[in-house]
Amino acid sequence: MYVLDALPQTHSYSFEALELDCGRTFSPVTIAYETYGRLNAAKDNAILLLHALSGSAHAGFVNDKGEHGWWEDFIGPGRALDTDRYFVICSNVLGGCGGSTGPASVDPATGRPYGLSFPVITVGDMVRAQKHLVDSLGIRALLAVVGGSIGGMQALQWAVDYPEAVRSALILAAANRLSAQGIAFNEVGRQAIMADSCWQNGDYYGGIPPRTGLALARMIGHITYLSEESMHEKFGRALKGVNGYHYRFSEDFEVESYLHYKGSRFVERFDANSYLYITKAMDYFDLPDLASIKSKMLVISFSSDWLFPPAQLKLLVRTLRRKRKDVTYCDVQSSRGHDAFLLDVAPLTELISGFLENVAGQL
Amino acid sequence: MYVLDALPQTHSYSFEALELDCGRTFSPVTIAYETYGRLNAAKDNAILLLHALSGSAHAGFVNDKGEHGWWEDFIGPGRALDTDRYFVICSNVLGGCGGSTGPASVDPATGRPYGLSFPVITVGDMVRAQKHLVDSLGIRALLAVVGGSIGGMQALQWAVDYPEAVRSALILAAANRLSAQGIAFNEVGRQAIMADSCWQNGDYYGGIPPRTGLALARMIGHITYLSEESMHEKFGRALKGVNGYHYRFSEDFEVESYLHYKGSRFVERFDANSYLYITKAMDYFDLPDLASIKSKMLVISFSSDWLFPPAQLKLLVRTLRRKRKDVTYCDVQSSRGHDAFLLDVAPLTELISGFLENVAGQL
Repeated sequence: MYVLDALPQTHSYSFEALELDCGRTFSPVTIAYETYGRLNAAKDNAILLLHALSGSAHAGFVNDKGEHGWWEDFIGPGRALDTDRYFVICSNVLGGCGGSTGPASVDPATGRPYGLSFPVITVGDMVRAQKHLVDSLGIRALLAVVGGSIGGMQALQWAVDYPEAVRSALILAAANRLSAQGIAFNEVGRQAIMADSCWQNGDYYGGIPPRTGLALARMIGHITYLSEESMHEKFGRALKGVNGYHYRFSEDFEVESYLHYKGSRFVERFDANSYLYITKAMDYFDLPDLASIKSKMLVISFSSDWLFPPAQLKLLVRTLRRKRKDVTYCDVQSSRGHDAFLLDVAPLTELISGFLENVAGQL
Repeated sequence: MYVLDALPQTHSYSFEALELDCGRTFSPVTIAYETYGRLNAAKDNAILLLHALSGSAHAGFVNDKGEHGWWEDFIGPGRALDTDRYFVICSNVLGGCGGSTGPASVDPATGRPYGLSFPVITVGDMVRAQKHLVDSLGIRALLAVVGGSIGGMQALQWAVDYPEAVRSALILAAANRLSAQGIAFNEVGRQAIMADSCWQNGDYYGGIPPRTGLALARMIGHITYLSEESMHEKFGRALKGVNGYHYRFSEDFEVESYLHYKGSRFVERFDANSYLYITKAMDYFDLPDLASIKSKMLVISFSSDWLFPPAQLKLLVRTLRRKRKDVTYCDVQSSRGHDAFLLDVAPLTELISGFLENVAGQL
């Protein structure tokens, strides 16, 4: 059965009526998800994994199209999320473009894609949709919710909103609110998309999407995911050509060509409107009241992450401790910036495996 | 005479033939400049002040249009650049849009603005043009060259290229090269301008300029000039409206509206092509060989500056000291990020006044 287990199981779950924070009731909702490993008879070995801005439900293994999962090195037998022991669920967020209902989905009322008539959603809404999915699987309490960046925000929201349904929450490279600087970067990315004449107020489906604007937004974002140190190590001032400067407005430096590549790759797989909606949800995220939490918490920062700096995560940890929550904190020394939560496999595997073993042992 | 002295004296200087680093000889060149204070008979009290990316020759005093100078608090009787003692010259850079020859200037060969036929220039070229100006004033040696950001790069280039003509160089919030991260931010700003359909490959003069692209570039830049701390102090997550979130893609947060304001103000006074040329010069700047320097040096970093982090300036200082250069270094504790060189008047005035007094005393 190993071969079967090593392929992601792709599914989707649809339901009517989702109450949204904006006050609207939205309908219908489909949530695309993948699973890895097997749900046990007691249904107490499930881990919900929550993706970041550009992620999808495809977190683990290589799928039948040969695509690698975004957290592949962390999912599988003997890995951080050990599929010999745990049943891992990863769903695409509400508002996303990886199979879940989002602005590119067809509005049954009009027969046309929602575009900007899709409601502005929050992290709370994303989590409420995930709760429908988890309930549908007959899981009463998740062993863990795990996420990095906006995925970590969702993990924290789960712990606050559904304390009885979350035994543990693992929050990587995220805090209980986005900083002014984070909002600023998101807003410039959104402005870049909305300034693209192809954007057409969000109504570009069937036509040419705002590729240039989305690529710009991705380039801006990408700079914030790396650190000055990792950019220095990776590129420094290395030139593309062998003949020195071009004295033209073309690519001179490796770092420029890397950003262009990242931007142009992204537009092939991501919907610009989803970028607007998900970044807005990130901006809106602000959870000052953590009193309801009952889960064990693991909070992990990365020393060179400047989008969610360690100081901000330490503040969250201090707040949790003052409220006598059971929280473990680690600042992983890393030069890889915000992206370290995707890359620093060895230290994270050790931290996460040990923490989950502890949680599972207390069942 | 105080009233007269308190108005900037505006001038321009034109010359033929400027040799450029790209290999071209460019002609003709006009350099716009302002002066404050009086050149003494010995012509040994002149300070050349060099502006940053968005600056101009208008550094001091309020001019007859009521416009404040970009370093106004540092220029005047008893101030850091004491106009009772020193003769301060501030020139607009080559490639700029504040009166000096740049891409918006008319090419005498065609009778039309240069646009992208303007040569890609370097910090070395800017400084070579300034040397023509200084020579024209009969000044054999400057008491000091002073600049922040790309102005600091120019000050360092002066010290390297014209060691006999520079008694001292004051380098604020700048290093001897731009980091990969700095290049990355500049490139995204340029891409935003060039993606604007109004840009027309740089040939937009007489038509509609690429306002949206330039505003985006400015917004990106502006984030890098502040610090996370100063953004937090200034805006935090404060909302624009009184009724909570809008659930629309309009401005929700103060920080968004601040960025929009900064972007829209900038396009009224700055030329998009100049933005391309000056950022490119910044990217190209890389001065590993500092052996020729004879000037006394004052290097100042700002603790929260992440565009030119203190660590990078310390590296420059260590390099200078290893070469037995006369260098004074100070890291000013400030929450204001890169912009601190424009804002932290009290500590800078003390540092700069003392340093200049020392230099002048040794004449």
